Amino acid sequence: MPRWKLTVEYDGRPYQGWQLQPHGPSVQACLEEAIRRFSGEVVRVHAAGRTDAGVHALGQVCHFDLEKPTKADTVRDALNFHLRPEPVAVVTVEAVDDDFHARLSCKGRAYLYRIVNRRAPLALDIGRAWHIPTVLDADAMNEGAQRLVGNHDFTSFRASICQAKSPVKTLSLLTVSRVGQEIHMVARARSFLHHQIRNMIGTLRLVGEGKWTPDDVTRALEARDRAAAGQTAPPDGLYFTEAWYE
Amino acid sequence: MPRWKLTVEYDGRPYQGWQLQPHGPSVQACLEEAIRRFSGEVVRVHAAGRTDAGVHALGQVCHFDLEKPTKADTVRDALNFHLRPEPVAVVTVEAVDDDFHARLSCKGRAYLYRIVNRRAPLALDIGRAWHIPTVLDADAMNEGAQRLVGNHDFTSFRASICQAKSPVKTLSLLTVSRVGQEIHMVARARSFLHHQIRNMIGTLRLVGEGKWTPDDVTRALEARDRAAAGQTAPPDGLYFTEAWYE
Repeated sequence: MPRWKLTVEYDGRPYQGWQLQPHGPSVQACLEEAIRRFSGEVVRVHAAGRTDAGVHALGQVCHFDLEKPTKADTVRDALNFHLRPEPVAVVTVEAVDDDFHARLSCKGRAYLYRIVNRRAPLALDIGRAWHIPTVLDADAMNEGAQRLVGNHDFTSFRASICQAKSPVKTLSLLTVSRVGQEIHMVARARSFLHHQIRNMIGTLRLVGEGKWTPDDVTRALEARDRAAAGQTAPPDGLYFTEAWYE
Repeated sequence: MPRWKLTVEYDGRPYQGWQLQPHGPSVQACLEEAIRRFSGEVVRVHAAGRTDAGVHALGQVCHFDLEKPTKADTVRDALNFHLRPEPVAVVTVEAVDDDFHARLSCKGRAYLYRIVNRRAPLALDIGRAWHIPTVLDADAMNEGAQRLVGNHDFTSFRASICQAKSPVKTLSLLTVSRVGQEIHMVARARSFLHHQIRNMIGTLRLVGEGKWTPDDVTRALEARDRAAAGQTAPPDGLYFTEAWYE
């Protein structure tokens, strides 16, 4: 039984998130339906990152099994055909061993968060970036970000509905840099808590505005209390960019 | 009577184009309505580039006159307030002399054209780039592009409905380069004929696919016959990026 690994791009706006929902569309449901139309087989698709409603992906990774043998290029083209007109595209497909699991085998995940930092509202980037009109100090935000890098108890940055067994995670990279009128944040870790990135961004925003110092970020982290950190940033600016494996 | 110069960004998808139309929405109508709501004055807005339906702008320039004196920041913020929820944003506003005219004073215009060159269809870039699945040779396209640079009769690249008095234009720059999975074309000229950029792109595509050589581009140009050049590229990938003045 062949197992297929996909790299998937999607616009998160129309979806309740990656995961199947009792009400409302999900990326997973779109993919499972496209697989059914293509192969006649009813399968479960597993993803590296269960992105929330409105969160986008440039490089989501997922896998599923098909009974029927076929070619990788056929899987890619057939799924893209049956996905139309959904804003979901299967970018690459490869056959993998039976012990590959998009979520369980994943050694690391990377996200990008885009802020458009200008007075004028968004036009081309509506729903695809966070608009912050007040001038942000990206260098200060990056200094604050470094206080979060490493192995920590991230309770202060964890959604109340988070299902992870432990709040301790290792954040391997968190950088903030200005790119013209945008501010880009790149986050890498083996895994993240629910809303962790959006809560870190909402906290670093306070540093960018000069309301907090980098020391305040350390204090928020050490408080192990969600109320000690900043608000949750909107999903609009968040992109799942990469998942990697051994 | 103060004259105001605006730099405007818009998503071209919902509009029939820049210009007022008897039926269907236009960017010009959105701006004139926002000005009316803000100031109570009924004005005409003039733009550097009358972009077609579906064409986007990152740096459209336009102007209009107001009777009432006010501040540039007030104009910008009030227009952006009244433009909501249209995907049109006034990025900058400045007071200019009475002899400034966004179209007539314009010394040059620049456009960007984006092709996403990959097998998978578009997801995040639906309506915002041209999807070409066959592999394109950007270097060959750039070589073909150089045959069009300079002062030429561009009849072969001119829409039949073009209203320009002469088909002779000076194309000051046309470059094609690969940026990851995208191909970017930058075009600069004092002015362009109707559909000139999209007809040049549709022609260079043939070179990128290996169906045409750069010499074929020269032959198409010299034919002075629209039928001798390639098809019109879709508006999706075209962005008005800049207009400059003395």
